[in-house]
Amino acid sequence: MTDAPEPSATPRPAGAVSDDFHVFDTTLRDGAQREGINLTVADKLTIARHLDDFGVGFIEGGWPGANPRDTEFFQRAREEIDFRHAQLVAFGATRKAGVRVEDDPQVAALLESQAPVITLVAKSHVGHVELALRTTAEENLAMVRDTVAHLRAQGRRVFLDCEHFFDGYALDAVYAKQVVRTASEAGADVVVLCDTNGGMLPAQVTAVVRTVLADTGARLGIHAQDDTGCAVANTLAAVDAGATHVQCTANGYGERVGNSNLFPVVAALELKYGRQVLPEGKLAETTRISHAIAEVVNLTPSTHQPYVGVSAFAHKAGLHASAIKVDPDLYQHIDPALVGNSMRMLVSDMAGRASIELKGKELGFDLSGDRALVGRLVARVKERELAGYTYEAADASFELLLREEVRGTPVRYFSVESWRAIVEDRPDGTHANEATVKLWAKGERIVATAEGNGPVNALDRALKVGLERIYPQLAHMELVDYKVRILEGDLGTGSITRVLVSTSDGKGEWSTVGVAENVIAASWQALDDAYAYGLLRAGVEPQE
Amino acid sequence: MTDAPEPSATPRPAGAVSDDFHVFDTTLRDGAQREGINLTVADKLTIARHLDDFGVGFIEGGWPGANPRDTEFFQRAREEIDFRHAQLVAFGATRKAGVRVEDDPQVAALLESQAPVITLVAKSHVGHVELALRTTAEENLAMVRDTVAHLRAQGRRVFLDCEHFFDGYALDAVYAKQVVRTASEAGADVVVLCDTNGGMLPAQVTAVVRTVLADTGARLGIHAQDDTGCAVANTLAAVDAGATHVQCTANGYGERVGNSNLFPVVAALELKYGRQVLPEGKLAETTRISHAIAEVVNLTPSTHQPYVGVSAFAHKAGLHASAIKVDPDLYQHIDPALVGNSMRMLVSDMAGRASIELKGKELGFDLSGDRALVGRLVARVKERELAGYTYEAADASFELLLREEVRGTPVRYFSVESWRAIVEDRPDGTHANEATVKLWAKGERIVATAEGNGPVNALDRALKVGLERIYPQLAHMELVDYKVRILEGDLGTGSITRVLVSTSDGKGEWSTVGVAENVIAASWQALDDAYAYGLLRAGVEPQE
Repeated sequence: MTDAPEPSATPRPAGAVSDDFHVFDTTLRDGAQREGINLTVADKLTIARHLDDFGVGFIEGGWPGANPRDTEFFQRAREEIDFRHAQLVAFGATRKAGVRVEDDPQVAALLESQAPVITLVAKSHVGHVELALRTTAEENLAMVRDTVAHLRAQGRRVFLDCEHFFDGYALDAVYAKQVVRTASEAGADVVVLCDTNGGMLPAQVTAVVRTVLADTGARLGIHAQDDTGCAVANTLAAVDAGATHVQCTANGYGERVGNSNLFPVVAALELKYGRQVLPEGKLAETTRISHAIAEVVNLTPSTHQPYVGVSAFAHKAGLHASAIKVDPDLYQHIDPALVGNSMRMLVSDMAGRASIELKGKELGFDLSGDRALVGRLVARVKERELAGYTYEAADASFELLLREEVRGTPVRYFSVESWRAIVEDRPDGTHANEATVKLWAKGERIVATAEGNGPVNALDRALKVGLERIYPQLAHMELVDYKVRILEGDLGTGSITRVLVSTSDGKGEWSTVGVAENVIAASWQALDDAYAYGLLRAGVEPQE
Repeated sequence: MTDAPEPSATPRPAGAVSDDFHVFDTTLRDGAQREGINLTVADKLTIARHLDDFGVGFIEGGWPGANPRDTEFFQRAREEIDFRHAQLVAFGATRKAGVRVEDDPQVAALLESQAPVITLVAKSHVGHVELALRTTAEENLAMVRDTVAHLRAQGRRVFLDCEHFFDGYALDAVYAKQVVRTASEAGADVVVLCDTNGGMLPAQVTAVVRTVLADTGARLGIHAQDDTGCAVANTLAAVDAGATHVQCTANGYGERVGNSNLFPVVAALELKYGRQVLPEGKLAETTRISHAIAEVVNLTPSTHQPYVGVSAFAHKAGLHASAIKVDPDLYQHIDPALVGNSMRMLVSDMAGRASIELKGKELGFDLSGDRALVGRLVARVKERELAGYTYEAADASFELLLREEVRGTPVRYFSVESWRAIVEDRPDGTHANEATVKLWAKGERIVATAEGNGPVNALDRALKVGLERIYPQLAHMELVDYKVRILEGDLGTGSITRVLVSTSDGKGEWSTVGVAENVIAASWQALDDAYAYGLLRAGVEPQE
């Protein structure tokens, strides 16, 4: 179907998997369109390293020439990254209407990027050709033909993205297929059908891809957006119909709702289709790579992302827990270790003995031998959760409870005589927040006062001011998250308050819970647990 | 296929859409299994009201008898909610092995819930029957037959959830289909095929559902989990194959990764399949309902959720922006207004003219005529929401803002000179909460002090003690719900606090919002708005 030289003219990295199937990542180009993401060149280089390490076949780095950042990225990536698995791809557009391809600076910039592979975006929707490009259907075909041929003549491998292909196909299938044929005949190695507006559903995608493949014989790829919540399914639906090139982004980052998510797509291909698309052993790094990239783009990793979320293999229902003790696979579609994730039991009042035992195991306690101890723990958890505590989100408080049952006495480093918090709204509208704590630690009485931007902040500061001399380890600990929940809301402000606190010592984070009739008292309890657990982590011996 | 009496024996609510296709919501049962969700009975009642308002056909409320919370929910839902569209569904299991169904207390509890519809979960996977249930394949069939027949004989409509159906079908299709036939012949109105472990992909789902439908003739439903990221697609794949009952949860909340998301499923059915599954005009409330439920479960609404996320129709790419100027539909698969969302050109925030006009209309103000007023409101809402306020869930605060713009001066009944709240933890472990307020009302200076079970409660009481003589209407008002959310949680207790308060005067409820650097000050703002709006409702003339 093409007279152009073999695409393999461009050398592929040593570790690259077979060219028969392409895992093409566009996190650095389409993913960067996500609201809230703003990547520096350094960020893009770091992400490129992670993606190459993961083993994708192609990394689309951006649009050289469109902005200085992308131009610099291609230059530095070439110099600084030794790609083991991936080929670097430059993204750009077909030549301008009525301009010789040799004279188009945008096309020239693509060659100057020295990327071995170039993805060209082209219109395949007649309406867009006329409305957005303001040119004729014929000229659009010439733009595709000229640009592909020109880049191939320069020894580059070329993929063609057919923007709005599915909408265009619905409007004028003949023209849409003409664009595919034109690109393929001019030497494009893959023609990528893009659901640019993300409105497609899997059954439609399978039908269209199957027909286009039969009618054009071109090698086809798929680029899906997630606007119907079906991007992953649409990507796989295209593969079912014969597409051998999938365009995805890490964690599904992308314009609007986002793009097809690289991780569930790759996991499905390897684990459900039995098709190896990553280098040996790389699938087990999925969770690590997903979280690492989230850190670079500075977005909290989604706790509920398929395969890689911390909740992806977390079990809550007692029904499930008892079955899982019999056989973990009863409630898991895969072994979490295959994607570098792990199973977690959530301790909640839905849980019974089974989940307590599994949770204890997770924390390094074998409770299976001591039925009485497990019984006491189940009873305490149920009683405490009835009172409003929740342990599924407060592992540290649960471990303190567990250790208290094991050693027979609470894990404490100081005792509280009393505390006081005052919030005052002044006539000038400003607020004064002051707290005083009276404590005993190592036989010494401590009285400390501090101000803060709120009563809890003031109490937190007073607590540390008072204890830091005795427990210097506290200096490295700070609250990193604070959540408040009002329970039995039908009692108004007279209701019970639950506070969840996350604390960090720079090396790790832990969560604690406090429940009381008012938010200040509940916060105090959570702070008390937070610092007790922090000192336990630091290896400090508790008081008897 | 069944000799049992017509399922329609149970009366359906006046506003219910046709019974030909079921939108079945299980947010309150399966959704509650999500890590981090812990619903009170009050929360469940509020969510049920939102779902009924949205117009789903069935609301699965929980497992009566399994825990006191669910038992209480069914009793209160019956007494307190006047369902206009939905039928309440109780979830439970088939009878225990070797026990007469009449003697099974779990089955009795389902009848005692007085729910008109009951969903029974049953095993359809031979491995689970033996490993988890520890009984025989034959006894499992008898358990299904007896339980369905028993509940039907009591005049209940029965749906049967086949747990692990797809995995069971792969292992032993004959047995899996036997379970479907047995349930259907015993009078189950719908047999729901559950992908309990969420490992399926759409093509597989379509194939299995098509075969089971052909071989059994039973009315089939689908229950999909999102472990492959394909729950929505799997749900639609089952509909493609002839399923006429879809089980979903609001925002996809659920065990592990989550369940099939109600909103994209309903939007696809109405907008892509052209099948009306909600009462007239309800689809346009999708975004509002989605965000309101997120507030109730106290989870930040997902910004990138299909159709309803604030980013779902947000455009960043310059390429897109320019094309959108030509024609917005060039880069949108649907008109966002169809689901109550709106297009945004980044960077801006969520409040657009459309949503303001929609909210105004909700409150009985036709703003479409006054572009200047709408412009001022958009500006104020943007500025306030940027500061952390949210009007999604605080209609009363929004109405006060709106009226202030209309009349040119704030709606106020008193002015605040200053206030003070003190929380003291005494050596005996009890707490003292005291508040003092200094106010001006009708030219009079008021100083009042009160105690409460918390600082906010004490402020609330001091406010009422001080004002009741001047505004006796306050005596009938009381806080019925109180929620706190910490914004920018990564700043610990130093972050901004948002408080949402619901107040009732016995005849109705209204919600207000306050935002400040500490929870007490934020609560004060919400209380201030709450009583201002309450007096407005009571027809009291505001101060000039």
